[in-house]
Amino acid sequence: MARKVEVTELALRDGHQSLLATRMAMEDMVPICEAVDRAGFWSVECWGGATYDSCIRFLNEDPWERLRTFRKLMPNSRLQMLLRGQNLLGYRHYEDTVVDRFVEKAAENGMDVFRVFDALNDVRNLQRAMQAVRRTGKHAEGTICYTVSPLHTVDKFVDMAKQLQEMGCDSICIKDMAALLRPQPAYDLVKGIKKKCGKEMLVHVHVHSTTGVTMVSLMKAIEAGADIVDTAISSLSLGPGHNPTEALVEMLEGTGYTTSLDKDCLHQIKNHFADVRPRYSEFESKFIGVETDIFDSQIPGGMISNMESQLRQQGAGDRVREVLEEVPRVRMDAGYPPLVTPSSQIVGTQAVFNVLMGRYKALTGEFADLMLGYYGKTIGERSAEVMKLAAAHAKKEAIDIRPADLLHPEWDALRTQALALDGCNGSDEDVLTYAMFPQVAPKFFAHRSEGPKNVSKTAEQLAAETAVKKEGTQSSSKLTGPVKYRVTVGGLARQVTVEPA
Amino acid sequence: MARKVEVTELALRDGHQSLLATRMAMEDMVPICEAVDRAGFWSVECWGGATYDSCIRFLNEDPWERLRTFRKLMPNSRLQMLLRGQNLLGYRHYEDTVVDRFVEKAAENGMDVFRVFDALNDVRNLQRAMQAVRRTGKHAEGTICYTVSPLHTVDKFVDMAKQLQEMGCDSICIKDMAALLRPQPAYDLVKGIKKKCGKEMLVHVHVHSTTGVTMVSLMKAIEAGADIVDTAISSLSLGPGHNPTEALVEMLEGTGYTTSLDKDCLHQIKNHFADVRPRYSEFESKFIGVETDIFDSQIPGGMISNMESQLRQQGAGDRVREVLEEVPRVRMDAGYPPLVTPSSQIVGTQAVFNVLMGRYKALTGEFADLMLGYYGKTIGERSAEVMKLAAAHAKKEAIDIRPADLLHPEWDALRTQALALDGCNGSDEDVLTYAMFPQVAPKFFAHRSEGPKNVSKTAEQLAAETAVKKEGTQSSSKLTGPVKYRVTVGGLARQVTVEPA
Repeated sequence: MARKVEVTELALRDGHQSLLATRMAMEDMVPICEAVDRAGFWSVECWGGATYDSCIRFLNEDPWERLRTFRKLMPNSRLQMLLRGQNLLGYRHYEDTVVDRFVEKAAENGMDVFRVFDALNDVRNLQRAMQAVRRTGKHAEGTICYTVSPLHTVDKFVDMAKQLQEMGCDSICIKDMAALLRPQPAYDLVKGIKKKCGKEMLVHVHVHSTTGVTMVSLMKAIEAGADIVDTAISSLSLGPGHNPTEALVEMLEGTGYTTSLDKDCLHQIKNHFADVRPRYSEFESKFIGVETDIFDSQIPGGMISNMESQLRQQGAGDRVREVLEEVPRVRMDAGYPPLVTPSSQIVGTQAVFNVLMGRYKALTGEFADLMLGYYGKTIGERSAEVMKLAAAHAKKEAIDIRPADLLHPEWDALRTQALALDGCNGSDEDVLTYAMFPQVAPKFFAHRSEGPKNVSKTAEQLAAETAVKKEGTQSSSKLTGPVKYRVTVGGLARQVTVEPA
Repeated sequence: MARKVEVTELALRDGHQSLLATRMAMEDMVPICEAVDRAGFWSVECWGGATYDSCIRFLNEDPWERLRTFRKLMPNSRLQMLLRGQNLLGYRHYEDTVVDRFVEKAAENGMDVFRVFDALNDVRNLQRAMQAVRRTGKHAEGTICYTVSPLHTVDKFVDMAKQLQEMGCDSICIKDMAALLRPQPAYDLVKGIKKKCGKEMLVHVHVHSTTGVTMVSLMKAIEAGADIVDTAISSLSLGPGHNPTEALVEMLEGTGYTTSLDKDCLHQIKNHFADVRPRYSEFESKFIGVETDIFDSQIPGGMISNMESQLRQQGAGDRVREVLEEVPRVRMDAGYPPLVTPSSQIVGTQAVFNVLMGRYKALTGEFADLMLGYYGKTIGERSAEVMKLAAAHAKKEAIDIRPADLLHPEWDALRTQALALDGCNGSDEDVLTYAMFPQVAPKFFAHRSEGPKNVSKTAEQLAAETAVKKEGTQSSSKLTGPVKYRVTVGGLARQVTVEPA
């Protein structure tokens, strides 16, 4: 008997986040939810920071309404979300009772599986959110952000897994956001976790496909005992996204492992998103091939394009190479944080500053905070010299307590501020929207009643555009034969024929 | 110590054949040959039927000159070609001395490794070419075309490998042209061959990437002992092409296997083809994602698009589904041939005929020949009933001898015909070009002196086109409403309104 491997489908969250800049409207997902619900996935990932942000910033959709709709349309599925630990879905640390409230509300609105991570792998930043999830009786998944550095070893990651287990997580996720997890470490890591935490500890593997090796890593993780793996339906897969769900099913055929996914459902889901995707081509990731440079630079693709645009804005577009070489230095000085939101932006921007203005001649506020422990602990020691500069810059001392311990209760103030906004409906959900996106929420509340906006092209627009493109390619948009116009001059209309002279 | 896995680079042949319709001009490969030569590949595939055809049909390039140029520019590399057994690089069986002559000339012009295959896996069709290669002292690689059917088992493929060994091949290739080779059979097949033919028998694995599972199959093949694997540089990889070379290198990092490839060289090769590829976008394969339907239909992607265009020409574009269902029936009746050039075209066209005119109401000449053994033996028994129809149609009997045994010496006649052509230089190489492409050779000989034609766009054309496309997308290039101009004619200014008539 083949061992059953469970699968989490990513199309509804990370799939379109990675490939279509998170722009997919709920109405383009609704028609396929029934097939997704029937396909036999262990869970359906459908909510997270970027989708929440995109809902209120671009799509005029209430993210809580989106969650409730998923819940209604997929009654048989575990719904899964990605939660940034103490940052929730925002970019700062929240005070503990806000964390509690968010988790309660998400569970109440239908969330089942909470994948909780911290950008620095500081488990103290996960603790409160994990406790809150456990109180709701929902599934708490503790997450290891996988990265590569001179200090990151399989043993250290396994130690972290043990800490997550001691915190009471229901499963452990290995989250490889930059596709750096090669097959051998994938195998060793899963084996190590199973050995240290016990066979019954569920291990869930999340990889991106950018480097072209991680499908093999999934195979190796499965051979090592991984229980659940993440994939995205083929028509929303590959490039900076994920490995294709259907290929996973076929890959296991004849091995000692099997999925229980329904191929007909997968086929429907694939065809649905193959139809939807071209309408979002404007938002499509430029790069959909394979990029292995990441292994050497350890800099995720998205981070490179960010830095390039920062440099161009400063008229220094030719200094990318220098910045790429500076990043590992800055990362070392900061104690080797994984490069993932927000640490990737913080380290990348500081590297740009260093190249343009001289090393640490100017610090960003965020980098100073990172150096002083205000985001949490890093795996390595931070440079004492740079910490001194950071303290001088930020006019505050380094801390080694959990950052959120410095925060005072803030729910009441957030509530008061939210309720003062035009269009706020007074619900805890609205207060949370305001708490996480204070800049964006006011406009969203004010315009919410206008209803969702679909930012993709209609099928008609797409067809017209394809026709124009074809014409453009063939004729170079030049006049090749006579064209008739109606021309009005001084009130007098005339039929005019124009042709190449 | 990690075991060294050797690599064949496909960019110069199958890479652009699969992705860019074989259109790449020699001048776009010349500048990178030095880096390819230094990278440390076991061999560099650079010649075959489709590249030969494309050279004389589209590029006005002498394929023999191309081979000699590769030889000169890559003095340290084994050059590799794909040879269709008794068909050489053409579509019919050639008489044995023509086969001998071709192989001698290819070796003389610089070819080192001959990968010899037969579309039906009839080893009798490989024998003469293999003997010819052995006489030249070059590397003879016997090839198994991998396919899936109720009759194809690992054991049968292993038996075929043993036959190839007995013929004296220097290595055995598993050629998976439709990306049907899943990880488990890849493992079992390599293990089986090594067991039956001995550990010292070199096993070479060639897979396409279409279904998204074959990178894992390469890993499994390597674990089972495969000596050499085929990949294409990342910028000419994926989709209907192959797995990326750089990803293979990274995949093995930390395992018990390693390649000895030079990463700097790979980086140069990647950048070179990343620059070249967009100029060939017009010829680019439409589909560059992952397609797993092939596993169910067993019909390669290229074959489906062929059938669709045949059906559309007959005004029956809506009957694709019926044809797809008919193909497995026709394939069964024909004794389950692998579907690869030319059997894929023969089976596909007959399926179209069956749907349009009734099952076997009309037969193509090629299908009748296939049924009657004129292409060789198939693994399964052919339908006696359909064979009877074929014999009536073709007015000839079924044969079970090697098809080429029916042929009479033809070199002198071919030579006389070739030499009569305007521009033929009288060399054996020219006679062979005429022998293999009698329809195309006359025009090529007549125009050869005009020199190679590069059918890609120049960088300037590409830039201009991108600009037009952008404009087209934004303005739709068409007048959709009234536009006001100030027009001055003979010193008199007037307000003019123009709108579509």
